[in-house]
Amino acid sequence: MTEVSRALREAMPYLESADAAIKKALGWVKQQSTEGKEISNDKLDLHQMASFDLAWCAAEATAARFTAEYAGRVAATGAGNGGVCLEERMALAFCAEALQNIHNRLRARPQSFGLGESDLASLAAPELSRFCRTQLDAGNLEALGREVVALNGASGAYMLGDDATMMQDTFRKVAVNVVMPLAADIHRHDRIIPKEILEPLTEMGCFGLSIPQRYGGMQSDEHEDNMGMIVVTEELSRGSLGGAGSLITRPEILSRALLKGGTEEQREKWLPKLAAGDPLCAVAVTEPDAGSDVAAMRLKATKCDGGWMLDGVKTWCTMAGKAGVLLILARTHPDRSLGHRGLSMFLLEKDSYDGHDFEYRQPQGGVLAGRAIATIGYRGMHSYEVFFDRIFVPDENLIGGPQGEGKGFYFTMAGFAGGRIQTAARAIGVMQAAFEKAVSYSQERKAFGKPIGEFQLTLVKLARMATLLTVSRQFTYSVGRLMDQGKGQMEASMVKLFTCRTAEWLTREAMQIHGGMGYAEETSVSRYFVDARVLSIFEGAEETLALKVITRSLIDAV
Amino acid sequence: MTEVSRALREAMPYLESADAAIKKALGWVKQQSTEGKEISNDKLDLHQMASFDLAWCAAEATAARFTAEYAGRVAATGAGNGGVCLEERMALAFCAEALQNIHNRLRARPQSFGLGESDLASLAAPELSRFCRTQLDAGNLEALGREVVALNGASGAYMLGDDATMMQDTFRKVAVNVVMPLAADIHRHDRIIPKEILEPLTEMGCFGLSIPQRYGGMQSDEHEDNMGMIVVTEELSRGSLGGAGSLITRPEILSRALLKGGTEEQREKWLPKLAAGDPLCAVAVTEPDAGSDVAAMRLKATKCDGGWMLDGVKTWCTMAGKAGVLLILARTHPDRSLGHRGLSMFLLEKDSYDGHDFEYRQPQGGVLAGRAIATIGYRGMHSYEVFFDRIFVPDENLIGGPQGEGKGFYFTMAGFAGGRIQTAARAIGVMQAAFEKAVSYSQERKAFGKPIGEFQLTLVKLARMATLLTVSRQFTYSVGRLMDQGKGQMEASMVKLFTCRTAEWLTREAMQIHGGMGYAEETSVSRYFVDARVLSIFEGAEETLALKVITRSLIDAV
Repeated sequence: MTEVSRALREAMPYLESADAAIKKALGWVKQQSTEGKEISNDKLDLHQMASFDLAWCAAEATAARFTAEYAGRVAATGAGNGGVCLEERMALAFCAEALQNIHNRLRARPQSFGLGESDLASLAAPELSRFCRTQLDAGNLEALGREVVALNGASGAYMLGDDATMMQDTFRKVAVNVVMPLAADIHRHDRIIPKEILEPLTEMGCFGLSIPQRYGGMQSDEHEDNMGMIVVTEELSRGSLGGAGSLITRPEILSRALLKGGTEEQREKWLPKLAAGDPLCAVAVTEPDAGSDVAAMRLKATKCDGGWMLDGVKTWCTMAGKAGVLLILARTHPDRSLGHRGLSMFLLEKDSYDGHDFEYRQPQGGVLAGRAIATIGYRGMHSYEVFFDRIFVPDENLIGGPQGEGKGFYFTMAGFAGGRIQTAARAIGVMQAAFEKAVSYSQERKAFGKPIGEFQLTLVKLARMATLLTVSRQFTYSVGRLMDQGKGQMEASMVKLFTCRTAEWLTREAMQIHGGMGYAEETSVSRYFVDARVLSIFEGAEETLALKVITRSLIDAV
Repeated sequence: MTEVSRALREAMPYLESADAAIKKALGWVKQQSTEGKEISNDKLDLHQMASFDLAWCAAEATAARFTAEYAGRVAATGAGNGGVCLEERMALAFCAEALQNIHNRLRARPQSFGLGESDLASLAAPELSRFCRTQLDAGNLEALGREVVALNGASGAYMLGDDATMMQDTFRKVAVNVVMPLAADIHRHDRIIPKEILEPLTEMGCFGLSIPQRYGGMQSDEHEDNMGMIVVTEELSRGSLGGAGSLITRPEILSRALLKGGTEEQREKWLPKLAAGDPLCAVAVTEPDAGSDVAAMRLKATKCDGGWMLDGVKTWCTMAGKAGVLLILARTHPDRSLGHRGLSMFLLEKDSYDGHDFEYRQPQGGVLAGRAIATIGYRGMHSYEVFFDRIFVPDENLIGGPQGEGKGFYFTMAGFAGGRIQTAARAIGVMQAAFEKAVSYSQERKAFGKPIGEFQLTLVKLARMATLLTVSRQFTYSVGRLMDQGKGQMEASMVKLFTCRTAEWLTREAMQIHGGMGYAEETSVSRYFVDARVLSIFEGAEETLALKVITRSLIDAV
């Protein structure tokens, strides 16, 4: 981590105090949950509330550090003209907020974290309080709000490299010119993404963002580069979460799974097609009775002549109708006690359908029936419950060939490796759109004689929105860079947890600023609000991420 | 206020400490905002953030006191079998949470409240901390969650009188048997409330709940009784917010306005009809460019032969299509500098329409055009933007006759007097429905080998849901009883503020417990979530209530 700027230096020892308290609590939870040399899941479950709070504390502390480092980089460009630049001010305000939140969580029930009064002393120190109070002062936030309003919907500098900036510019134009004008129609009439959006995006290589160039994609052959995927997802999600911003998710999952587990033949056959968006693809992993619990999957694959026969049900299979190929996680070994070791992964080729429900019949007699699940938002993609009745998949479509049998769980994990950071990018796009509308409406709408955006309460709201948006974005970018170095899986869960909940809050406030009109479907903030609500549910529900990934990893490492 | 039970007695001095700190802060804001002997609105606006936070602090402190008093009444029935009963435990947990919230808000920026360290000392006292920590302990909340789950969707005792209990039983049956089975269809197809719901409710006297018996209603002729209206609204809203729970709102506004300002002739003519739900009515007050700012109303009424000619636009006119009579606030005096003193109130008779958009043509040539505004929730009522083009209203329909000219603002205020407490009751109904679904789903859905409702995090969520639901309900009932005594207008704003935001949180958590299925339209928690979102916006947006009503009243009284 590069050095922070002078303005941020004050905050650093306070963040260290927070880290120390969090670490102490993690150590206590670990000790309480250890049986022999192992951590017992049952024992750890007795501390779920503490674990959930600690995941949030750690996520905020990490966000604060990344933001401080980012603000330092901006300041180093001379942005503050010798003074404190906007990004530093937002970073300071966020550090203060994060410190308050962390302290408030821990001091509400220190005994549930194994902490005593002395462990909290440094978080309660007068100089730390003074720092927070200065930053969170109503007048300070109001002034920050005025600066933010003057930027007209922009917040902090992006600080991207040249390649990412170029991609951002290119996809921003499509998002504004093509996606935005269609977004309301897609949402209000629950339409599938139209070709007006699909065609230009396909042409621009959107589906090949995670596929190496040697397989026809845009990804470097040498090293993973997540920044392109992140900025493209962000810009498209600003246009429409379900109508564009989530298009990359599925080809990315397939590509990662194939790159991890596919035979060279399978990669050569499928990756160029996926990169070209022809066919479109979908992922059938989740089952109705097993959300986060992959080991409990039931869809059955039975060996038959020349291939496998699939029977069972998958759900939340997004794009299943329109997709020409499905990635399926199935149980190839009947012994359920094997858990996830009995799972394998298949590709199923099928016809493409534009409507809602569909029924695909195989010449061999198999039937794949898709029932579209209507949702309150995230429309454009269409999600399905999919019923497999004697669906045949040829041997060549077992990922990894005979060697791949029983390894489906690992290929799935590899496939989903980018899903969390990508979901964070989706959250940022939705927030950016909502924030812009909140700023512009606050200037248009008058109450009691002046624009509502000139009142303190609105200015403070806008300041906080800009700050949390900037923190979310830079947290995501920082984790993306970590992932480029093959690290950051746990941080990806943190940034997903943090940005998705932040998007719920920010879109709620954007709606509130719009008053009654915010609740009307014709006003786009109402769409951002319902769209944002899916983010904390899918790609790892917040409870699962907090308990099973973040705190668990932190405990293992402590 | 009756005495609290022994268990709650410990909390009382802590609530007094909170009150003292809040009062000190209010006094400081008042002093900062006073110019000469008057409070200057401009100066007060410089403290909006503090005012907003103080409104919340005061609302939570008030909720805690009413809940403590309620728990005492339950305990006095012997409910705890000599021990501490469930209601007392919930009251204790809520007192702790409220104290924490109040302390956290004030200590985040004491200087913005004019508070020093010494003013916060009693809120930071070790014994108060110990009390809160004991109550908010993870194990304590988990145990509370287990008790709550065993109640299968019920939470605390209602403690209603016989009359209210009888009305509750009666309307609960209709809500369960008639409203609930139709609620999803109304919402998902944006239908107007069907006669299957309207007919039984009309027969049961639902529209006459706020109308004295001498005018054909169910209300006592001697004194105001809000409890009937509250429990009926609560039960119907549990069935459907827009499909039943909000039916009473409009006849109540008309009745209150007529009782306040109508001539005896107008009352005798209209009140029996309103009580019989024939015609249905609607209220045209809000204008597109003036939400909370009534003095800025523009819709123009020009005197003509035998009546008045109305020109202009109203918006958010709920039920305008189906209604046979509209209550309209119009500017009868052209001098806009008169502000609200230039406003008068009219009744307009019109045809009834079942569809969405409508156009009503008068024989005299006037046209009333209604454009239905699609909303993300609160469906069933249909809200409209209504365009008045030379609409004629006869003299006899000027409320209050010639004496009523210029008094429309006061009649409107009288009309809306019950709207806030009623909205609180609507919030409780929606919360109750969501809470029941959360409890039942947590028992059905399994993850990692057992029902999710057996994990600590879910139990703590359910404990908090039950607690906040019970607090919201009892806060509402207590304010209803105050209003029966002609008091409690400011408290009605507090309870509206508190319950509506709580309903947003509770429905969000209920959805989260449902995982992916919670986001599906076929699952009713998705409807509760979008329905709940309207509550903090309409009938006084939370910012308006906090700043213009609650804190302003508290400052005036300090």
